Amino acid sequence: MAIAPSASYSVSVRLRLAAGGLTPVVTAVEALGGVVAATGTDDAGVTLTLNARNPGHEHEIVAALRALPGVTVEAVTDCTFAMHDGGKIEVISKLPLTTRADLSMAYTPGVARVCMAIHDDPRQAYNLTIKRNTVAVVSDGTAVLGLGDIGPEAAMPVMEGKALLFKNFGNVDAFPVCLNTKDPEAIIAIVQALAPTFGGINLEDISAPRCFAIEDRLKELLDIPVFHDDQHGTAVVVLAALLNALKLVDKRLADLKVVVSGVGAAGVACSKILMAAGVRNIIGVDTRGAIYAGRTENMNVMKEWYAAHTNPDGLRGSLAEVIAGADLFLGVSGPGTLHAEEVQRMAPRAIVFAMANPIPEIMPEEAGPYVAVMATGRSDYPNQINNVLAFPGIFRGALDCRASAITEHMKVAAAEAIASMVAPEELSPDYIIPSPFNPCVAPAVAAAVQAAARADGVARLTEDDSVGFDGLTR
Amino acid sequence: MAIAPSASYSVSVRLRLAAGGLTPVVTAVEALGGVVAATGTDDAGVTLTLNARNPGHEHEIVAALRALPGVTVEAVTDCTFAMHDGGKIEVISKLPLTTRADLSMAYTPGVARVCMAIHDDPRQAYNLTIKRNTVAVVSDGTAVLGLGDIGPEAAMPVMEGKALLFKNFGNVDAFPVCLNTKDPEAIIAIVQALAPTFGGINLEDISAPRCFAIEDRLKELLDIPVFHDDQHGTAVVVLAALLNALKLVDKRLADLKVVVSGVGAAGVACSKILMAAGVRNIIGVDTRGAIYAGRTENMNVMKEWYAAHTNPDGLRGSLAEVIAGADLFLGVSGPGTLHAEEVQRMAPRAIVFAMANPIPEIMPEEAGPYVAVMATGRSDYPNQINNVLAFPGIFRGALDCRASAITEHMKVAAAEAIASMVAPEELSPDYIIPSPFNPCVAPAVAAAVQAAARADGVARLTEDDSVGFDGLTR
Repeated sequence: MAIAPSASYSVSVRLRLAAGGLTPVVTAVEALGGVVAATGTDDAGVTLTLNARNPGHEHEIVAALRALPGVTVEAVTDCTFAMHDGGKIEVISKLPLTTRADLSMAYTPGVARVCMAIHDDPRQAYNLTIKRNTVAVVSDGTAVLGLGDIGPEAAMPVMEGKALLFKNFGNVDAFPVCLNTKDPEAIIAIVQALAPTFGGINLEDISAPRCFAIEDRLKELLDIPVFHDDQHGTAVVVLAALLNALKLVDKRLADLKVVVSGVGAAGVACSKILMAAGVRNIIGVDTRGAIYAGRTENMNVMKEWYAAHTNPDGLRGSLAEVIAGADLFLGVSGPGTLHAEEVQRMAPRAIVFAMANPIPEIMPEEAGPYVAVMATGRSDYPNQINNVLAFPGIFRGALDCRASAITEHMKVAAAEAIASMVAPEELSPDYIIPSPFNPCVAPAVAAAVQAAARADGVARLTEDDSVGFDGLTR
Repeated sequence: MAIAPSASYSVSVRLRLAAGGLTPVVTAVEALGGVVAATGTDDAGVTLTLNARNPGHEHEIVAALRALPGVTVEAVTDCTFAMHDGGKIEVISKLPLTTRADLSMAYTPGVARVCMAIHDDPRQAYNLTIKRNTVAVVSDGTAVLGLGDIGPEAAMPVMEGKALLFKNFGNVDAFPVCLNTKDPEAIIAIVQALAPTFGGINLEDISAPRCFAIEDRLKELLDIPVFHDDQHGTAVVVLAALLNALKLVDKRLADLKVVVSGVGAAGVACSKILMAAGVRNIIGVDTRGAIYAGRTENMNVMKEWYAAHTNPDGLRGSLAEVIAGADLFLGVSGPGTLHAEEVQRMAPRAIVFAMANPIPEIMPEEAGPYVAVMATGRSDYPNQINNVLAFPGIFRGALDCRASAITEHMKVAAAEAIASMVAPEELSPDYIIPSPFNPCVAPAVAAAVQAAARADGVARLTEDDSVGFDGLTR
């Protein structure tokens, strides 16, 4: 299926026009299916920003411009690469440092008293260091986006992007930590050693099943929240979308038949949160078909868990077989896994969340005629299941109450808060989930997460923890 | 000896005055030896900032203010602690993130191409991630300032302060990494695993002799600069100060008798750089006296090296004995180690660098009458040996040319650049070293370091490394 031109493949072209104005240039771009996103003219020439469909399309259009008579292409910049020049985040001072007095307070000798206040009462690290607001975004680069095991250096742009999202949407200071090891024991030991600096750990793009063991062990070892976003961020937003979708189709969680395509990190976490919220009948499907108790082929630790806790009717067979009568298809697998004829055999008022990115399990155009509600992970269709709706607010809330962990209850509270941002009168099949740019989402999520943390007894911030005149608690 | 009131012990006091104006308040502060640094009056009352000598002195003055008739103390804030509220650094976005187009370039799906460009050519990490400008400030909290082994949480304010200095003086993005382990092998493995994110590693406040092994192994393992600032930063600034001091006393490096008090990390590094610069006769002294070939008591790996490479005349005995005829005393030990009667037995036109902080080996008032040049680590006396003169410019230069290491030659070049910032006509016994706030120092150091790196063949940046239109080198 054809992908529309987008900003992801945009190019800024610096042109000099001998004569004829912009008409031939714009015509050439559009003739090849490109979109002219912006133009600007100054004394030195014209800057044209165009959106293409892919890198080959970028090159094709630029070549056509170069071939135009009277047009000189002076410079070509891919906008995405230009945006990444030197990285996307920066570490700055919160303080002026212009006098000896500043220096003597922010550094030696004044800083020594601050150090000793923390040494005497380790809780003061939350008052007197960046710990209070800082999260590590930890990856080993083994499962980066849909790209697979591309290594820690190549994973950095994603982790920097995550830090950008943390800051923009949650005002959380996040720092990328891309590790040059794939050994789960080494990763656990490293993150444990790094913990003093951070108020929370966001695990990211670590391949299954290693991610499960790493997360579980770190949760046991650390007294700060550990959250594997690929699992739990996705799960929270899926639950939020589902809560609203069910209002439209008038079904209850307990009555649903759910088919989950893809039993990796996200699939398992989505299944767990759905079960915690009340779903009883989930069938997981991998490349070998349904997972059932007693299956021996292509299993791993998490699939064993899955076999033991899901598929109560013991269904066997391919996705095409088990999809019959399903109320919800949850796709966290790969492009084109689901077909229109299968969607037609789902229950009436079926829901499809096809979240493979960038190409979903089924495109909205294909599934649309047969479903009541359709969502994807894409920004160019309605109902984008985007975990930026979840993690900034979840960590904001967890940091603000100094949570020691992120409980299931906190995740469900986050999902309910996200769902609540779509008002009843706004709710429609094309609007079950708020926009990632809705500025009310993260504060609402943070508030709900804090309340749940306090209810669960994992919030550690008390009145006694505020810092006093001499650096001691009071 | 009495310490003067300073900003390090400053307090902001919020007052309400019934009558009588500020006179009784200022009188009370000054009567107790405090300094009124600032006052401000608004409708709600008076804010008084006062400098004290130490925390007890702060409390004493505040208690006196509380006891004044007609004066109500409404709030008291220690300025140093207030400055540390929530930490001193922040991670920010370099990009706006307000539209779906922004999101699609900085994060999925656009970021995937950037990841793959790095995967295809790892050198692109320097173009397309924060690596180009980012340094880890790594500590295990075992030798923090003069405070000793206070642990990683308590070390954070110093490491954050270091990040602040990196940014303010070198425009380097530095991030604190305080490790919850003291095991050298674990620290080496962790820093090795963290290296993909960073363009350099600044080791900080790691106790000797562990710091030597950690630094040596990391230099072998990594292709980015590894620099233990407590050693080499100090050494560079000492050499800079000495180069200028020798001009005043008209002596040559090769002719000096140097006594080094303290054979820890800084002492060893200072000795090495002095020897690299041409000094031949160095005698190291620890609590058991001079280190000589064949000494067996209180030795360690580095002292064995010291015994083998220094003290060519095989001097034995206490500091008071070996100081006779010395041209330079270099103190990196503790307060009050050197006495005036010992200084009097040094060579004519002696130089004393007494760098123990905050109380030097000998105070300038005591040594002054008997020496030609005196320097300390303190900001309240002339000639402050402050390694903020070195590390920001050294890393700036190393990052700008993508140096794979920091060579001895680069350190000496840095020292010469620092020394050169004092013009011949300005040079005097009270001005041998530039101010840490001299904005020309870091650029000059960076330029000298880059030139030395290129000469040494460790600079990796070439024309070919600039990023092209499609993310490939060109």
